Amino acid sequence: MHPHSISMLGTGLIGDFYTQTLHGQRGADRVRVAYSRSEARGRAFGERWDIPEHTTDLEAAIRHPDTDVVVVALPNHLHEEAVTAVAAAGKAVLCTKPLGRTAAEAERMLAAVERAGVFGGYLEDLCYTPKTLKAIASVRAGALGDVTWVRSRETHPGPHSAWFWDGRLTGGGAIIDLGCHCIEIIRNFVGKGNRPVEVLCHTDTLVHPIADEDNAICLIRFESGAIGQFEVSWTFRGGMDLRDEVAGTHGTIWLNHFLRTGFEMFTAGGSGGYVAEKAETAAGWLFPVGDEVSELGYVDMFSDMFRSLDAGTEPQETLYDGYVVNAIMDAAYRSAMAHAWEPVTLDWRGGSTPRMSSSPEEFEGQVVIKREILPDGRHKLILKDPASGDFSDRVIAAG
Amino acid sequence: MHPHSISMLGTGLIGDFYTQTLHGQRGADRVRVAYSRSEARGRAFGERWDIPEHTTDLEAAIRHPDTDVVVVALPNHLHEEAVTAVAAAGKAVLCTKPLGRTAAEAERMLAAVERAGVFGGYLEDLCYTPKTLKAIASVRAGALGDVTWVRSRETHPGPHSAWFWDGRLTGGGAIIDLGCHCIEIIRNFVGKGNRPVEVLCHTDTLVHPIADEDNAICLIRFESGAIGQFEVSWTFRGGMDLRDEVAGTHGTIWLNHFLRTGFEMFTAGGSGGYVAEKAETAAGWLFPVGDEVSELGYVDMFSDMFRSLDAGTEPQETLYDGYVVNAIMDAAYRSAMAHAWEPVTLDWRGGSTPRMSSSPEEFEGQVVIKREILPDGRHKLILKDPASGDFSDRVIAAG
Amino acid sequence: MHPHSISMLGTGLIGDFYTQTLHGQRGADRVRVAYSRSEARGRAFGERWDIPEHTTDLEAAIRHPDTDVVVVALPNHLHEEAVTAVAAAGKAVLCTKPLGRTAAEAERMLAAVERAGVFGGYLEDLCYTPKTLKAIASVRAGALGDVTWVRSRETHPGPHSAWFWDGRLTGGGAIIDLGCHCIEIIRNFVGKGNRPVEVLCHTDTLVHPIADEDNAICLIRFESGAIGQFEVSWTFRGGMDLRDEVAGTHGTIWLNHFLRTGFEMFTAGGSGGYVAEKAETAAGWLFPVGDEVSELGYVDMFSDMFRSLDAGTEPQETLYDGYVVNAIMDAAYRSAMAHAWEPVTLDWRGGSTPRMSSSPEEFEGQVVIKREILPDGRHKLILKDPASGDFSDRVIAAG
Amino acid sequence: MHPHSISMLGTGLIGDFYTQTLHGQRGADRVRVAYSRSEARGRAFGERWDIPEHTTDLEAAIRHPDTDVVVVALPNHLHEEAVTAVAAAGKAVLCTKPLGRTAAEAERMLAAVERAGVFGGYLEDLCYTPKTLKAIASVRAGALGDVTWVRSRETHPGPHSAWFWDGRLTGGGAIIDLGCHCIEIIRNFVGKGNRPVEVLCHTDTLVHPIADEDNAICLIRFESGAIGQFEVSWTFRGGMDLRDEVAGTHGTIWLNHFLRTGFEMFTAGGSGGYVAEKAETAAGWLFPVGDEVSELGYVDMFSDMFRSLDAGTEPQETLYDGYVVNAIMDAAYRSAMAHAWEPVTLDWRGGSTPRMSSSPEEFEGQVVIKREILPDGRHKLILKDPASGDFSDRVIAAG
Repeated sequence: MHPHSISMLGTGLIGDFYTQTLHGQRGADRVRVAYSRSEARGRAFGERWDIPEHTTDLEAAIRHPDTDVVVVALPNHLHEEAVTAVAAAGKAVLCTKPLGRTAAEAERMLAAVERAGVFGGYLEDLCYTPKTLKAIASVRAGALGDVTWVRSRETHPGPHSAWFWDGRLTGGGAIIDLGCHCIEIIRNFVGKGNRPVEVLCHTDTLVHPIADEDNAICLIRFESGAIGQFEVSWTFRGGMDLRDEVAGTHGTIWLNHFLRTGFEMFTAGGSGGYVAEKAETAAGWLFPVGDEVSELGYVDMFSDMFRSLDAGTEPQETLYDGYVVNAIMDAAYRSAMAHAWEPVTLDWRGGSTPRMSSSPEEFEGQVVIKREILPDGRHKLILKDPASGDFSDRVIAAG
Repeated sequence: MHPHSISMLGTGLIGDFYTQTLHGQRGADRVRVAYSRSEARGRAFGERWDIPEHTTDLEAAIRHPDTDVVVVALPNHLHEEAVTAVAAAGKAVLCTKPLGRTAAEAERMLAAVERAGVFGGYLEDLCYTPKTLKAIASVRAGALGDVTWVRSRETHPGPHSAWFWDGRLTGGGAIIDLGCHCIEIIRNFVGKGNRPVEVLCHTDTLVHPIADEDNAICLIRFESGAIGQFEVSWTFRGGMDLRDEVAGTHGTIWLNHFLRTGFEMFTAGGSGGYVAEKAETAAGWLFPVGDEVSELGYVDMFSDMFRSLDAGTEPQETLYDGYVVNAIMDAAYRSAMAHAWEPVTLDWRGGSTPRMSSSPEEFEGQVVIKREILPDGRHKLILKDPASGDFSDRVIAAG
Repeated sequence: MHPHSISMLGTGLIGDFYTQTLHGQRGADRVRVAYSRSEARGRAFGERWDIPEHTTDLEAAIRHPDTDVVVVALPNHLHEEAVTAVAAAGKAVLCTKPLGRTAAEAERMLAAVERAGVFGGYLEDLCYTPKTLKAIASVRAGALGDVTWVRSRETHPGPHSAWFWDGRLTGGGAIIDLGCHCIEIIRNFVGKGNRPVEVLCHTDTLVHPIADEDNAICLIRFESGAIGQFEVSWTFRGGMDLRDEVAGTHGTIWLNHFLRTGFEMFTAGGSGGYVAEKAETAAGWLFPVGDEVSELGYVDMFSDMFRSLDAGTEPQETLYDGYVVNAIMDAAYRSAMAHAWEPVTLDWRGGSTPRMSSSPEEFEGQVVIKREILPDGRHKLILKDPASGDFSDRVIAAG
Repeated sequence: MHPHSISMLGTGLIGDFYTQTLHGQRGADRVRVAYSRSEARGRAFGERWDIPEHTTDLEAAIRHPDTDVVVVALPNHLHEEAVTAVAAAGKAVLCTKPLGRTAAEAERMLAAVERAGVFGGYLEDLCYTPKTLKAIASVRAGALGDVTWVRSRETHPGPHSAWFWDGRLTGGGAIIDLGCHCIEIIRNFVGKGNRPVEVLCHTDTLVHPIADEDNAICLIRFESGAIGQFEVSWTFRGGMDLRDEVAGTHGTIWLNHFLRTGFEMFTAGGSGGYVAEKAETAAGWLFPVGDEVSELGYVDMFSDMFRSLDAGTEPQETLYDGYVVNAIMDAAYRSAMAHAWEPVTLDWRGGSTPRMSSSPEEFEGQVVIKREILPDGRHKLILKDPASGDFSDRVIAAG
């Protein structure tokens, strides 16, 4: 294990989460220098996390001689400049989500990093939650059969910082903020090599007086026939709802990352302290999570990034993945405008995936539609006659 | 209270559920005669439920001099004939869901009943579950503010009886079987007077070798701007998943009707008995419900029907509601074919509903996008300058 | 089914629940006359439930010529007088829980009813919740093997009415109020014929400035070796916690009757209405139940009572059961004073139950302590050498 | 941060969990040498975890010149010899739970370590789960008011290794295996300075043919008046049930560490892989946890140990805590034999804790027993007249 020395670009909430993770537990890696556009915020951040140096000079932060890894934790509209500068400096670059405001931006960043030959990682924490990692492993081991449908939902009452609400800076609304998580979670479950073909998206601005969407729902059709469904909202009441549901031909997985994780607290008074990210109340029934940076995936994410960097391999989440996510979001916004399915336009590197298996079982020349086990052990078949198209029941001995 | 004497048309699973309900607890109403197309099934049904008489003659069952109410619990393609005959006989008619295979069928049934001037009720049990009734009352009392989004989900591994799989007899696949429930649940939450304007639907046949959809997702846009989202599937694994989620500007409701209701059982052996409707296993962790006919709404449904009949008022679920549901399903199927939003075509009697409230709060000439309460009691505002479109934060004293 | 005409003695909260149940759904039975010690409360009750007559004369209510069943819903210290008077009047008597303040009181009531030869029923609603009934049936069908341990817990922030807090009127504190439910739930799971042998109880007055216990925990040892554990509290915060947990040699059942039943609501405002029995807040996350009188067992309880009365059979919960519960509570209070196990003194009619099965499996002359199935299908045995007392592992092929 | 080099004594399941944690994520610490009583198991362990050296010589492992910290992960009967030897070698020693088989053993270990002046830590992982740490912090911040009752439950179907079943080697049965966790969890919630005064314990051997207890329940009375209740079992069916419940005068906390943590999976087939510690099945509904070594507290435990060692401070869990736990377990076993409360005999260093607050509110000369807020905002008081002892209701305006 090689300890890394990091330049942290950005000192907002996400910079806090990242640094808390990097400096947490027995981690050997340390943030060496923090960059903020504001001297005051940079100083406060440095003091909060015991960081030796802070600066308002982006290039100085990137090119600091002691650092070998640069983490981009800036607002979306500043990603391209920062990533390009890190690549030019020949250092490893880890960029927060979404990679770009558009696929075009993301593609330029990807190209810059690949030209420079430096290590790049996409900081998509929610693909690294411990539950998600174990669920992905179960799916790959076949526990669910073929994946048919993945639903990923991320909703809360809206972002804390002003810039998130400005689509000119971010590239959109709830989709660009939250949908990027959902899309990449879905891709992990259907398989990264499973090409996203087309997208049907509906957006709405139901509550907040803004120009961009505060609610959206979207379907992604993959080459295998599997469907990804994501739901995002900035109008949910009750905290932050992060749930994933995976359906397969032989099984089901339900993940709840935030509101129902086995920690329930009722308090008449309220403790006055921080309860959880985006909690709405400080009294009554509350649902904290144990260790947010672990439960939300930050710990496993940075471990994967640094282990991959050390080993010279690709991390689970690459900048190319970030680019694919942007391409799907571009198609989603186009679909919402066109009110129709839109193709996902992208430079696809993932190969080809066959249609999910569908060779139906036969019984005495008829197609078996469904097989149930009765209480007495016999099997009940629902059969379809291929000639007439008629359906019938049949109860047979087991086996 | 006037006890009623009932003719039950149909002796399948739904006839069992209905009769179990009618003859359950201290109910005063009784099934007097059962009609089945099969003499053997009719006899077995009569013995099972202690019913004085059974017949294979539809008209005889309907016109039996002792009965004043006829319940139609037949497969979908037989509804029109049966309902029309009951209306002609001048008796009260209660018809199971869906009312018709199409809105045209439903409209003819509605017209026949209205012409005859008899009482008609739509047996949509899932709008009568005790949880749903209490949730609807909370929504109407304003606990959630304006309803913005309702999601209703009904999925299981597929129906038990052969005829359900034959779209020629039913009118479709999972939508016609399950979506009809979801649509009417959604209508109850957004308001029955809230006109369904248009529909966007995606259907798929992912697993079963059939011609109709075994999975579907659909959006319904209502006049108020609220969105109804339903998800139906015949490919879900793990039992029967019945969940409703209601989002409002000031609150949230989550209902789970079947798999997580506070009854959890692990058994190494399996008791050999009936566990629950559409349970998949008889060992391991099982999730029974307490009293299915109560939890699934049958008890409250028949109570409402008979109380309304006695009082000369309309029940919560009318045949007109059944017609509206069919009209929405028609639009859903058209949308799935067209891959586009389709208008809901119907004879609307519900009046007009204003756009959900959206007069934004102002603060010193700026629009308040969001207001958060900080741990120290102060308020943090996210503001939008209407002139520049720029966003900013502001922390102010409470109030 | 024979409709019954009822005299309701008592017009407090429990009288409301009973009458709501009796007059609910399609029930044929009706309350004919209400007795209250207060003219004003009797009148209000009569108006609330559309009851033809009310009186402050106990004998008149009992001997009303139109009524055939008398329900005793009075405070504990008034049960004996009322039950004795009903027996003397030769009418069926249904008495709320607990039957007496002591076993001596209960025994006198039982004797009076048996001497009179009238029907008697013990209104122990929580043994009739739909979940409990189904769980009991599963246990009797063998789904859990031998029952080894039953835990029943009922806790809330304390009763609503003043008289509940006065041990002179009730017979005690949280045990007499809540423990009576738990004890009878436990008896249903371990078997009514399983003699309660001895009791170990700890009581405490942790929060409220009263003379009686506001917290208690108690163990009941049954003849089979099974242990019943109950926990009661008047100091729980967060609503009403009603949970039962049944452990058997081959399975487990967990029931949650109130706080986690699949109904979850977040409201920023609060609807101002009644949320649920003993809910503590009207905003934030709330957990209503669907239909309280059904979920809490009142519906099935009265159905069983009247069906049994009509059939001339014993109901599930008899006055003898009420007496046994009192005998166990007497032993609990003695144990709490003595800080030691105390025998349950009672006139036992239940016969004898053998020790739960415990003939251990053997393998090659050793005792099998545990058998696990390994991922590769082989079995791992933990063995005990009966001679040396030494333990060892052994992995063998399946079967 | 100073990386540490570790000698791991013991190569069983707990050694695996410890080493997985130490070598996990970005941890700087490494196991340098492994000791096993078996050459073969030591070699396999070394290969499994990439450990440079293994040995069957205990002293050699302890005195290895490269290591500065020794972890004792041996069966209980070997703790004293190992801890004493590490202390004699002048190295930091971290010992797994329980510290000793008896308080006498634990006291000798504690004395040896204190005489040697080396760092000692008690590896009580379940006091370090992220949920537990956050819950303890909430309790200390006052979110629950005064703690009145803590229930800690740990049950599963019995240990995997033979030696656990031999009370001669372990010191007992389910209490010594599982109760040690519960006791220390309870102490963290009631306060480490809150003296355990006396214990009431019931043990039983309900299922397994062994001499020691396979079930136990125990009450611990603390100086403040708070009660700790623990339940342990080796006969639970359905996996591993780890739950803690904390009751306070103003709030409640419920923690579920294993079976209901927001990860639910149904699989028809079973993936053939490791699902979770002590899972019972590989098909049907399964409830994995995300990252076991994090969720079960190992990560935070070692972080605290090494940070404390580096800082020269005491860890959260000291060897003295281990000794207190043993003293409580000794009292529990005595109580189970005596069927009576038994005092906890120990060398107490924790100071004194006042009785939990209990100065009751007064209203117009009467004692306020309970205050409820009515739907109309008024307050309902239940009052006790101190002279007569009579109780009454009073409804007053708010405030």
